[in-house]
Amino acid sequence: MLRVGLFGFGRIGRVHAANVVAHRQATLASVYETDPAGRDRAVDLYGVRACESVDELLGDDSIDAVIIASPTPTHVELLTASVRAGKATLCEKPIDLDISKVDACRAAIAEYEVPVMIGFHRRFDPSLAAIDRAVRAGEIGDVECLRITARDPAPAPVEYIAVSGGQVRDMTIHDFDLVRWLVDSEPSELIAMGANLFEQGYAELGDTDTVHLLIRTEAGAIATIENSRRGTYGYDQRLEIFGSEGALLMDNQYEVSLERHGAAGTKRRGTVLPGFIERYSDAYVQEIDHFVTSIVDGRTPKVSFEDGRKALLMADAALESMERNAIVAVPG
Amino acid sequence: MLRVGLFGFGRIGRVHAANVVAHRQATLASVYETDPAGRDRAVDLYGVRACESVDELLGDDSIDAVIIASPTPTHVELLTASVRAGKATLCEKPIDLDISKVDACRAAIAEYEVPVMIGFHRRFDPSLAAIDRAVRAGEIGDVECLRITARDPAPAPVEYIAVSGGQVRDMTIHDFDLVRWLVDSEPSELIAMGANLFEQGYAELGDTDTVHLLIRTEAGAIATIENSRRGTYGYDQRLEIFGSEGALLMDNQYEVSLERHGAAGTKRRGTVLPGFIERYSDAYVQEIDHFVTSIVDGRTPKVSFEDGRKALLMADAALESMERNAIVAVPG
Amino acid sequence: MLRVGLFGFGRIGRVHAANVVAHRQATLASVYETDPAGRDRAVDLYGVRACESVDELLGDDSIDAVIIASPTPTHVELLTASVRAGKATLCEKPIDLDISKVDACRAAIAEYEVPVMIGFHRRFDPSLAAIDRAVRAGEIGDVECLRITARDPAPAPVEYIAVSGGQVRDMTIHDFDLVRWLVDSEPSELIAMGANLFEQGYAELGDTDTVHLLIRTEAGAIATIENSRRGTYGYDQRLEIFGSEGALLMDNQYEVSLERHGAAGTKRRGTVLPGFIERYSDAYVQEIDHFVTSIVDGRTPKVSFEDGRKALLMADAALESMERNAIVAVPG
Amino acid sequence: MLRVGLFGFGRIGRVHAANVVAHRQATLASVYETDPAGRDRAVDLYGVRACESVDELLGDDSIDAVIIASPTPTHVELLTASVRAGKATLCEKPIDLDISKVDACRAAIAEYEVPVMIGFHRRFDPSLAAIDRAVRAGEIGDVECLRITARDPAPAPVEYIAVSGGQVRDMTIHDFDLVRWLVDSEPSELIAMGANLFEQGYAELGDTDTVHLLIRTEAGAIATIENSRRGTYGYDQRLEIFGSEGALLMDNQYEVSLERHGAAGTKRRGTVLPGFIERYSDAYVQEIDHFVTSIVDGRTPKVSFEDGRKALLMADAALESMERNAIVAVPG
Repeated sequence: MLRVGLFGFGRIGRVHAANVVAHRQATLASVYETDPAGRDRAVDLYGVRACESVDELLGDDSIDAVIIASPTPTHVELLTASVRAGKATLCEKPIDLDISKVDACRAAIAEYEVPVMIGFHRRFDPSLAAIDRAVRAGEIGDVECLRITARDPAPAPVEYIAVSGGQVRDMTIHDFDLVRWLVDSEPSELIAMGANLFEQGYAELGDTDTVHLLIRTEAGAIATIENSRRGTYGYDQRLEIFGSEGALLMDNQYEVSLERHGAAGTKRRGTVLPGFIERYSDAYVQEIDHFVTSIVDGRTPKVSFEDGRKALLMADAALESMERNAIVAVPG
Repeated sequence: MLRVGLFGFGRIGRVHAANVVAHRQATLASVYETDPAGRDRAVDLYGVRACESVDELLGDDSIDAVIIASPTPTHVELLTASVRAGKATLCEKPIDLDISKVDACRAAIAEYEVPVMIGFHRRFDPSLAAIDRAVRAGEIGDVECLRITARDPAPAPVEYIAVSGGQVRDMTIHDFDLVRWLVDSEPSELIAMGANLFEQGYAELGDTDTVHLLIRTEAGAIATIENSRRGTYGYDQRLEIFGSEGALLMDNQYEVSLERHGAAGTKRRGTVLPGFIERYSDAYVQEIDHFVTSIVDGRTPKVSFEDGRKALLMADAALESMERNAIVAVPG
Repeated sequence: MLRVGLFGFGRIGRVHAANVVAHRQATLASVYETDPAGRDRAVDLYGVRACESVDELLGDDSIDAVIIASPTPTHVELLTASVRAGKATLCEKPIDLDISKVDACRAAIAEYEVPVMIGFHRRFDPSLAAIDRAVRAGEIGDVECLRITARDPAPAPVEYIAVSGGQVRDMTIHDFDLVRWLVDSEPSELIAMGANLFEQGYAELGDTDTVHLLIRTEAGAIATIENSRRGTYGYDQRLEIFGSEGALLMDNQYEVSLERHGAAGTKRRGTVLPGFIERYSDAYVQEIDHFVTSIVDGRTPKVSFEDGRKALLMADAALESMERNAIVAVPG
Repeated sequence: MLRVGLFGFGRIGRVHAANVVAHRQATLASVYETDPAGRDRAVDLYGVRACESVDELLGDDSIDAVIIASPTPTHVELLTASVRAGKATLCEKPIDLDISKVDACRAAIAEYEVPVMIGFHRRFDPSLAAIDRAVRAGEIGDVECLRITARDPAPAPVEYIAVSGGQVRDMTIHDFDLVRWLVDSEPSELIAMGANLFEQGYAELGDTDTVHLLIRTEAGAIATIENSRRGTYGYDQRLEIFGSEGALLMDNQYEVSLERHGAAGTKRRGTVLPGFIERYSDAYVQEIDHFVTSIVDGRTPKVSFEDGRKALLMADAALESMERNAIVAVPG
């Protein structure tokens, strides 16, 4: 059994905790959480050791692996310390909002051969994973176009936006990773067209509520991303990939498999799944499974530190594109 | 060009007239219609000859083929006269509501080698025809079960019901033909469960508004039919066929290919197609095309007099089943 | 925390065990399982007490409730003993294959006011529960027709069939319960048309592989059930309910939300969910939640002993219908 | 009856001819076609007058309206002459590939009060028209984003491309018109990212086979267009419009309403409709109906000369954007 320590017992920390507990090859051994209520809840639910400090958790030799699910500003420090302590590490995205800190962290951990995985959970979604397998198997031939639609169900509070790093670093970053993963070619240039269509409070922070992007990859494929902070009808998560011989389209998922008919026309009941917790519940299970089994079996986990860094470089390019209202080259 | 004469310029007569006119190998030459307004309209729209009598139409040697789209009680007489006049004949279903009259007609035309086709238009629907082709090609292996759902959009007036011959002779008769055609095995026994769920006026006429049937064929396959005189949401026309290696499901068709999303959930706009004119518009085009090209090319048309007779035998068996509340053998 | 004892740690026992463990208001305290390997696995996974006898489990005063997931022939004895021991009891369906034993059990527990629930899990499926709520809320008006399609993914081994009680007692029994639940009217008569279309080994046991039924309820509604022991493309679980003002249709559920397009036409990836474990995983969670919270809150659970008995009466009527090839009245 | 003259009896001219013939308020009176075979066919099918010259057709006082369906280079001259002859005119898109010629034509016909309509047929498609009505009725609130996907079924021959005016003037021009129509706000700036992903012969002509665009409108909405000269699976025609209160999504349309299931998974039969003739057959009917009834009733037709000119201005901006690899302002 892989013994896992967890930093952070907030919303995403709790998802990971439950999935570690339910995994046949892993045990949740300890938790570090600064909020006393959260800490008590972890102990109450799972009987884990509640650590008083980062060092206490990392200093425990019985711990094999750690999951970093604490706030973004703590990631770089915890990731560096965990790697130095020899713990296999799964760190939530983004590594940091500042590329210079990410690069410093990269240098600091370069010499350690400890498995590090970044939490781009969508790569583990059964539908997206099926697309990846089909593309690798050549079912659609050469990839030519990718289109991603992502709309949050409802705008986040302005307080969250203020510390989020901005729409492209916080939200589009997932889509940047999907582009690199599914197209399997590095981006060469991109253009971002941002707008404030419904949340003027975001504009005051210099952030957008809507951003559409075109991205050209080195292999020539074109990716289109549509992002909005509001869905009006649920959590809109769709993706289409077109190749020389076919196409794969991922539709939204619904709460129930019903069609309602009446005099007013056909209605499909309910909305699409309401948020990321519901839509990606299987992805989080599979993400933990991949992390755990990779460590247990001695394989390198799929989503590397470099993948986390590259997605941030794309976000920074998108910000520059919006500032200059121009096409921007993406650094390698 | 095949020169066609038409008996009857009511609702279905007009559909056939337009399709004959649009066909490249056929011309609508003459019409016999007892209603002066209908007759004038035919002349006005298509410049056809308006015949004063049945004999005038059938006595015209320039006429190659006739379509009988007049009221049901006239079918047997017109069909017999047309065949005797040597005209290739397309007769609307049912041949008659009384099997003894059908049998008499059968005897009367037995010696003539004139092409006769009965108007079971659904066999020519592109979706149903695609099912037929797939089944013949062995795509689903041996046919085991067939399920037909047919709901009229709204109950017909009691006046119509009084002369309709009853739900199974007027409505289910189409489904009886589909069973024989798609299962490709004669029915051996059937059970009909009828009900008056919403139209008590029908009950006073001894007719049902709802009837469900189970039919066993000689080859062992089971067919299920659900019929209702009311759809509440459009014209419900679905069919499923299950075989040893797969299944084919025909869904309803919609007016527009839209999905509407809003806070109240996903809605698909509009209802299913509202009636048989809309749903089977292509089937009527293909039916005329099959009739015309069969005659022109010297091939025997697909839907025979015997097919029309067999469907009526099944309807009579269904009536007997409801009267006796028992399973009934279908005569061969 | 409700302390739960479990009889049987086979396939369905394990599903219930995991759901009890994950429930916030319940603890899995003890298991009785005659197979040593199963017993050891329960202890290993959950650290529960492994009881050496039924009496040891039922004699433990700390146990509040029991779940009976052992083989069908043990149900009546365990159910009677559990109720007499004052334990709230969730018993898997069927109560027994023999109505006389069910009636004897009914008499034996009549005087006890202990909550008893029968495991018709489909009532807790989110889609079916949504249909129930919509029907109760009057969204489709008066219920007129119900249609249930249920096809197992693949035929069960002949050895299983030999002890299953036959298709209608083992498989259709779920659908009988759905008819009573959703139509909300007792069945008055039914007709069953059975067949052996692909498994001749079943015929040698006097069992069918395919059965279609028509059921009339006291309120006049007609239900149609299609059952097959083989799906060819997954686990076919669909239901349609038609009312005076609308209809609700439950479609199959798919493994991934993908559409694949290529030169050969559009393909939706994979099959429908492959079996009941996958299709009804949420239903099993909700079933345990209903049982646990009903007991904790002092409410009567939804699916009563009487519901289990009535479904068996319908199955017996279906068997009689097939033997006599006739419509049969369902006893009240 | 409106008497119509037709210039050009090629592919699109024949579609218009059949729709004029079938219209209750219009007659196809004369055709001018330089190809003798085409001219003979028109006479043979419809018995129309075959004109030997443009002047013969326009000089016929009995002609009320003309349809210009001849090659693009002839449009400006024919349009000018028709307007000067006082004929209500429906001219196929594009007016011309050269904006200076369009502007010259605009000046030449400015003083005439003759109805002129440009043939953007998609505005008359039932699904797109339903979207327009819903948007106008406020169903989705303020329009924020529009996304258009258009993929031709297969690349056109290089010979056609050489005279087409290029992908954005020939293909995207329809989408430019949809943006202006559905967003109901003029475009302010756009970016086009073109590529040659599969047709190098196009590259040699300086044309693209794939182009993706972002367009910002004066009202702030963002439109995304994806265009490809190849679909791999049929004619891909989809559109999504997002507003402050909901969204409307138009899906592709299929040849038959079938789902095929087998061991290899669910397959929907056939591809999406194969080309514009099939996909927009209803749109062409409605377009002619709108033209005819507008003239007959004295209303101004919906799609003006100015609409045709604006779409060309957007195409020219897109070309400039690709040349400069920059965001470009769209002239008013």
